[in-house]
Parts: sequence; C-alpha cells; structure tokens
Amino acid sequence: MLKGKAIVAQGGGPTAVINESLAGVVVESRKVPTLDRIYGAFHGVRGIVDEELVDLTQETTHNMEEVAKTPSSALGSTRDKPDLKYCQEIFKVLKAHEISTFFYIGGNDSSDTLRIVSEEARKGDYRLRCIHIPKTIDNDLVINDHCPGFPSAARYVASAFSGFNLDNAALPGIYLGVVMGRHAGFLTAASALGHKYPDDGPHLIYVPERTFDIDKFLTDVKTTYERYGRCVIAISEGIHDGDGTPIMTKLAETVETDAHGNVQLSGTGALADLLVAEIKAKTGISRVRGDTLGYAQRSFLGCVSDVDQREAREVGEKAVQYARWREEDGTVVIHRTGFYSVEYHLHPLSDVAGKTKVMPDEFINEDGTGVTDQFRLYLRPLLGSGMPNAFRLRNYMVPKVLGRSPGGDD
Amino acid sequence: MLKGKAIVAQGGGPTAVINESLAGVVVESRKVPTLDRIYGAFHGVRGIVDEELVDLTQETTHNMEEVAKTPSSALGSTRDKPDLKYCQEIFKVLKAHEISTFFYIGGNDSSDTLRIVSEEARKGDYRLRCIHIPKTIDNDLVINDHCPGFPSAARYVASAFSGFNLDNAALPGIYLGVVMGRHAGFLTAASALGHKYPDDGPHLIYVPERTFDIDKFLTDVKTTYERYGRCVIAISEGIHDGDGTPIMTKLAETVETDAHGNVQLSGTGALADLLVAEIKAKTGISRVRGDTLGYAQRSFLGCVSDVDQREAREVGEKAVQYARWREEDGTVVIHRTGFYSVEYHLHPLSDVAGKTKVMPDEFINEDGTGVTDQFRLYLRPLLGSGMPNAFRLRNYMVPKVLGRSPGGDD
Repeated sequence: MLKGKAIVAQGGGPTAVINESLAGVVVESRKVPTLDRIYGAFHGVRGIVDEELVDLTQETTHNMEEVAKTPSSALGSTRDKPDLKYCQEIFKVLKAHEISTFFYIGGNDSSDTLRIVSEEARKGDYRLRCIHIPKTIDNDLVINDHCPGFPSAARYVASAFSGFNLDNAALPGIYLGVVMGRHAGFLTAASALGHKYPDDGPHLIYVPERTFDIDKFLTDVKTTYERYGRCVIAISEGIHDGDGTPIMTKLAETVETDAHGNVQLSGTGALADLLVAEIKAKTGISRVRGDTLGYAQRSFLGCVSDVDQREAREVGEKAVQYARWREEDGTVVIHRTGFYSVEYHLHPLSDVAGKTKVMPDEFINEDGTGVTDQFRLYLRPLLGSGMPNAFRLRNYMVPKVLGRSPGGDD
Repeated sequence: MLKGKAIVAQGGGPTAVINESLAGVVVESRKVPTLDRIYGAFHGVRGIVDEELVDLTQETTHNMEEVAKTPSSALGSTRDKPDLKYCQEIFKVLKAHEISTFFYIGGNDSSDTLRIVSEEARKGDYRLRCIHIPKTIDNDLVINDHCPGFPSAARYVASAFSGFNLDNAALPGIYLGVVMGRHAGFLTAASALGHKYPDDGPHLIYVPERTFDIDKFLTDVKTTYERYGRCVIAISEGIHDGDGTPIMTKLAETVETDAHGNVQLSGTGALADLLVAEIKAKTGISRVRGDTLGYAQRSFLGCVSDVDQREAREVGEKAVQYARWREEDGTVVIHRTGFYSVEYHLHPLSDVAGKTKVMPDEFINEDGTGVTDQFRLYLRPLLGSGMPNAFRLRNYMVPKVLGRSPGGDD
C-alpha cells in the first residue's frame, strides 16, 4: 500500500524524456488518497544523503506537465555509485523522513542501488517499497525490449546522420561521427535509420559488440570511398580491440579516467580526431572530417520520439500503481507484444540490477560494419511519428555540348 | 527578359533551407512562358566547367517540393573559389549551352564569382543575366539584414545550448560548446537564445569580433563557476588573439590549412579539447566537458525555422522575377522593415561580392562575454514558430530532519 510519504529521484545520464517518468510518478502519486506527500531528491541519491529534498506535492500540475516535456533531469542527477555504507546512509535519511516508498529513475547502477537499499530496509525491519523506473539512452537494461530515453536519442542520431549523409553528398569526402555508448552499440546502430536511398550513408557502422581492427577499418573506408566517391561512418565511442582496450587509449597519448578506472569517452573529440588523422595518413584521401555527436544526443531541445514520451510517462505511472497495489519491490519492465505495442510488468530488482545488455548478433551484419533488417524493424516504431524524410532530385542529365574531360584544380 | 535556357547552381557550405531557394528558382522559372529549360549544375561552378548539368524542367513539382524541405545542397556544392581563368571556362560552357540567365545560390565567394562571370559576358558581348541568391549560416553578407540559412542554424544552436544548459544543471561542471563561424560570431551568439531562467547558461559567449585572451577567459570561467556552481560556455571556432592568430593554432601542435592558407576549424574537435585541457590544468575544476557542434549545425534533419524556409523560398522566387522583368545583374537582398517583416531588393553584385559582415558592436556586451538585448530582439523573430521551451520545477524545500552537513565522496 502506498501511504504516508514517497520519494522520487533521478540518477545517471539525463535523457530527453526522463522528466516524463518523473511526471508520471508525481501526477499518479497525487491521485492516491493515502499518500500525503511526494518528495523529490536533488541530484539522485546524493540529495537523499545530504537531505536536499523538495516537496513535489506543492508543484502545480500545469508546471509539472511542462517540466515533463523538458529534456534532462529536472531534479538533477548524480554519477555516484553507492556502496553498502552509502546505501546505509540513504536508508537512514529515508527512515528519518518516514518515507514509505522510494522510486528511482535510472539505469542499471540505479537499480543496483535500490536493490541494496531494499536489502537494508529488510534487515532493519523497516517497511520500504523500492521501485526502479528504467531510463537510459544506451538501451542496455536486460529483459526490457528497450529503455525509455533510448528512442529519443536514437531519433536524434538517425536525424543527424541523415543530415551528415546529405552534407557529405554535397561536399564529398570522408565523414566520421562518433556516437555515445561504452558497451552497447544500439545508439550508434540507430544511425542506420538515417539511410533512405540505396547509396546513402552511413556506409559503415562500428559498434562495441565487435572487435575493432584499425587495418580492416582503413580497408573498409578505402573500398567504400572508391565505390561511392565518398564515405559516411558511424562509430561508437566504446570501440575496442581484441583485448577490450578502448581504441581511444591505443591511439591517444593521454586519456582521462574516472573514479572506476573507466576511460573518459564522452565530452571529448579525441577519438574522432585520432581516427581522422589515421585515415588521412594511411589512405591519402584529403577531405576527411570528424564530429563527436556529444551531449546533444541526450539533451537536444526539440528532438523527441512521441512513442518514447508516452512510454516514459507510463513506466512512471505504472511504478506508482505497483507500489499502490502490490507488496513487492521491483523494476518496471517494457515488453514488446506486437508491431507496435507494449506491456509493462514488474520484475524483481535483481533481474536488472547491475546487468548490461548488448546488441544481439542478429542485429549486426556479418561483416560487422552495418545493421540487419531485423534491427531496422526493431527500431523504426520506437522513433515515433513525424520523422523527417530526405528527398533527392532525380537528375535528368543534359547532353554535353563541349564534352571535354573533367579537369581543373579539384 | 527571361528566355531560352537558365541555369541554377549552389555553392559553399550547405544549409537547412538552401533547397527552398532552389525550388523557388525552379518552380517560378517554370511559370515563365518564354523560358524553355531550367538547368542545374552539379557541385556549383565545378559542374558548369565539367558540363555536369541536369535538366530540372523534367523534375516533378511534387518531388521538387519535397527536395525543398530537405537540408543540404540537392545539386551538390563546391569549395572552388574561381579565379579569372576559371570564370572564363564557366562563361565558355554557359555560352555553348546558350544559357541566358545564371542563378547562383551562395555566399560572398559565390557572388564574387558571378561578378567576374558577368564581366566576362559583357566583354564577350554575350547577353547573360547573373543573379546571386544569398545563403550562408555565417550570416556575414553585407547589406542583408540576415542571410537565408542562418536562422535555421541559429535555431539549432539555441536549441542545443538550451539542452546543454539543462544537462549541465543536472550534472554540474564546466561545459564548453564550439560553434561554427570563422569571422562572424552571429551563430555563436545565437546560443544566448537558449537562455530562459536568470541563472541559465550559456553564461559566457566568445565571438571572433573580440580578441580572445586565454587568461581573462580562465578568470571568467572561474568566477562564473564560483557563482553558479557550474558554467556553460559558447565559443566560436574563429576566436583569435590580438594579432588575429587563431587560438587553435596557438594551442595545437599541428594544424591543417586549406588551399587559401586558412586553418581548418570545422570537422575537428581540437579547439574544444585544447580549451578543456587548459581549464582543467589552470583552474583545478575536475568535471570539464567540451563538444564541437559540428555539421549538425547546418544539416540536421528536422530543425528548421519556418521564417527561414519562407524567406529562402522567396529570395529564389524573387531572383526569377528580377531576371524576368529587369535588365540588370544583381544580388537579392533581404531588408527588415518591421517587427517582423521583410522586403527584397536587387542590389548590384559589387555591393555584396567578396565582402564580409561581422556582428555590430551594439550586439555584444561590454565585457565581450555575452550578447545585448538588441541582439535578442534581432534574432528572436528569425528562429520561427514553435521554438521548444524549457521548464523547471519550483523547488519547495523540505525541512531537514537530520540536518547533517553535506559530506561523502563527491
């Protein structure tokens, strides 16, 4: 039963629709007569430990609905990955504020935090419901067909690559775009949905599910360039060699690592620049350009999938319903049932906590440089309605009059 | 009088609406009974010299309208900057194909090409009408209030920075985004329109119209960080020191230059990475991230200003009307008449050819780290309708129960 006070927090990297889930929790909570207050914690679990809490019961529904449509975590987020001691602190504050239910919107780290906190509550004989609400642009939560946040990020990546392809066709050369994703290549693979005409880019897609071989890569690029006179490449920031060493580490002189020893992949253009330099040096092709798609992938204002919005809202709402009607902790999971329809189920926290899903083999082509139709079928409905579409001229050639061979300082 | 055959080409960097101008020319041309054919040249003047021409009269109007809504140059573009000899070759091909009118959609280089070709035609006693149609995301054509292509790019930049600000608020630190623009800072300044709440970023904006001093920059960043606990910065790729030396050249070990000796600024993340490294080294702030906004600024599929679309279409249509009813060469110029309305006029090619406009002083604040309200008033109507809007929670604080001082491994 949902009663007294509940708290909601947002963890990990922001997404375009994470506030839909927040609104789902808040708006639905306020319909529960036995619930007095719904609190929010600033910056995830950090805000709980520091008692930086807001009373979301006092927000107007109108503002809440506007916040829902705003990207990035409205409550703030955190990269903290709590250990047992940290979780005990969380529990201490929740207990002090007489919180009966803890909703945490986040990825696999956040679900693992909930799992530990839930365990602490049980040990302390304190009745605390812990419900995890899925969110991640990486799309790497297990069991879930897909994760809220991913479809909107995928829409951004597909739209961006559709534009990169057009740009590259107008001014031919090699173009390389680095996409977020340390272990899972879903977001990089989404670039394929920018493809429309048969010779459209991205012509090559590299995901972390496959070992990245720099020599094969250079051969792929050269072959594609010879075939199309140009080449558009989508590369995951997480590409690595056979030993699992990130390519960034292999090519760069210095790399930054985080508290967990992970090499910093986002917020730097180094990988794109290093690969561009390799292509220039080894293939002799002169016009080579590289972009790193950066934070716009998860927070660009105005690029959102309506399917993603709806589902992100629903997982928030379902979390409250589960807390209200069921006496168990868990994680809200999205199951795909048709083409295209979904259902939500509550699974035990341990089913999802700390686990990482990567792209299944059937989504990646044999050569490891592209996606399959099965992936296209998987992703297309998630991108939502109103996807912009690129059109070309049909090019009715005019017979030459002078008919000289091309020359000039190209 | 517009008769016989006309040709249209697109030059320089693509924009989100350059095909609206193309459609404006093609659709309007086909209404002129004395005009038999409207040709298109592949890849700008390069396609003319190589006789790579298409007959746009054979395109369906329906496809033309779809192409109009597609970003990037549908005919392809070129970076060629023709000299006299090259222009003589262009003239030779135009004459061989009995072209009576040459429409060139492009920036100041393209208008300069037209000026030389027009001169050659006059010398050769050949009746050729040359009409320049303005286009550039840099917004640097003189006389024009603004240039088609800029408003959509500005909308992208404003939307991106609105998102970067939200992202940075969720996970505080220093965020730096590098924006296109070698000499003119209009596009970088557009980041200011992503600003809504008083403490929103971008907190600092650096444009090439002001000398960039790295020490002052570091002080600005530190001061802002101390004030807000975070800092969002928009920086033009063209920032330079007092001698006009690009900052990129000063910080980088190796730089790439083009045929004209210009340092390559786009298609590399180097400037952002170098500035991030400086901030980390000199301020001791740990979470510092840099993005380079890249080609998405001019070619992202689905971020377009409807005002820009309409005007880009109209300058194409007006070009045909001028060619039809007037016996003079020229460039179509956008004049602002009200808040917000525009008029088009035909100016002599030499008024615009080869000249560069930069931001007027009244658009830049005294400190050189932001824009004025006058700039906001200038830009807002150009961004078009339906600009997405960011909303915040109102944060009704919950009184602390434990009230400990914040701690933990932040």
